[in-house]
Amino acid sequence: MAQNASNPSPVRFTAGGQLILPGDYREWVFLSSGLGMTYQPMSGGGHEPAFTNVFVNPSAYRSFLKTGTWPDQTMLVLEVRASASKGSINKAGSYQSGVLGLEGEVKDRAKFPGNGWAFFAFGKSSSGKILARPPRGDRESEDCYSCHLEHGAVDNTFVQFYPVLLEIARQKFTLRR
Amino acid sequence: MAQNASNPSPVRFTAGGQLILPGDYREWVFLSSGLGMTYQPMSGGGHEPAFTNVFVNPSAYRSFLKTGTWPDQTMLVLEVRASASKGSINKAGSYQSGVLGLEGEVKDRAKFPGNGWAFFAFGKSSSGKILARPPRGDRESEDCYSCHLEHGAVDNTFVQFYPVLLEIARQKFTLRR
Repeated sequence: MAQNASNPSPVRFTAGGQLILPGDYREWVFLSSGLGMTYQPMSGGGHEPAFTNVFVNPSAYRSFLKTGTWPDQTMLVLEVRASASKGSINKAGSYQSGVLGLEGEVKDRAKFPGNGWAFFAFGKSSSGKILARPPRGDRESEDCYSCHLEHGAVDNTFVQFYPVLLEIARQKFTLRR
Repeated sequence: MAQNASNPSPVRFTAGGQLILPGDYREWVFLSSGLGMTYQPMSGGGHEPAFTNVFVNPSAYRSFLKTGTWPDQTMLVLEVRASASKGSINKAGSYQSGVLGLEGEVKDRAKFPGNGWAFFAFGKSSSGKILARPPRGDRESEDCYSCHLEHGAVDNTFVQFYPVLLEIARQKFTLRR
């Protein structure tokens, strides 16, 4: 659904269908961050855990505050950052350093039939390489899509890990049952 | 320094001198988060580590992107949140849950002579209980103030832990030497 000029949609694609990463996503609304989160049993690997920051476009956030769910033209960006522990005056725990990866999840009902959600992984360029979209069937896309569909607390998204929105969803009765 | 009506300062005080926590600070620009960070040697206590999210008012953020340092009427909010590990489909690592505490650091040259910075701790109310201001001398305020003054990478703030701004400060040559 097109939005008006004063509130343009952040969901934009290249002619080749790649999602474009907005240059100002770091000024979007922060939903939450985790450290070393994983949805699979631990593999026992010894690598440092990564931080995961989630941002959403401001107009979608304000819509969620009112309704408890996401409007069309919502875009979430997952920013994966390395963790560091010893540096400056810090003695323990972890703080964030360089970007390890960027992913996007968008809701665009006109472009993605079904529930409208699709998943993308960004490479080094400013346009995203498509990772998953509902009509296709490669293994990785099915994993993203089916896991969010099955476990997302609100409308295909992991609101269970975003404490401010979780409280809103409780108040608005939009949590999955 | 007063700002114009379209860009009001977020730094507001009660008649009693308490800093007011802006209701929309969660829509401010996210600088970074840490987990279990501490500037003192570990005490060996067994409590769960806390997440620390840092937000800044958007106009101060955009000014930092241009100049590499903070303008007058900058306000940073430190949000301390509990961590959880086992919940929903998460198997390891940590995600954020309820708020444990809120602190504020403001730059207001007219109100706080010297370098203009002062520190506040918010209680349960929406106005902040003063924690530290430069001219006074209780122990806790001296700790905040002197540690930021001595170790802050840019203008009394811990930009060394905010990776996006750290890169800007390197480019603008505003890092402390």
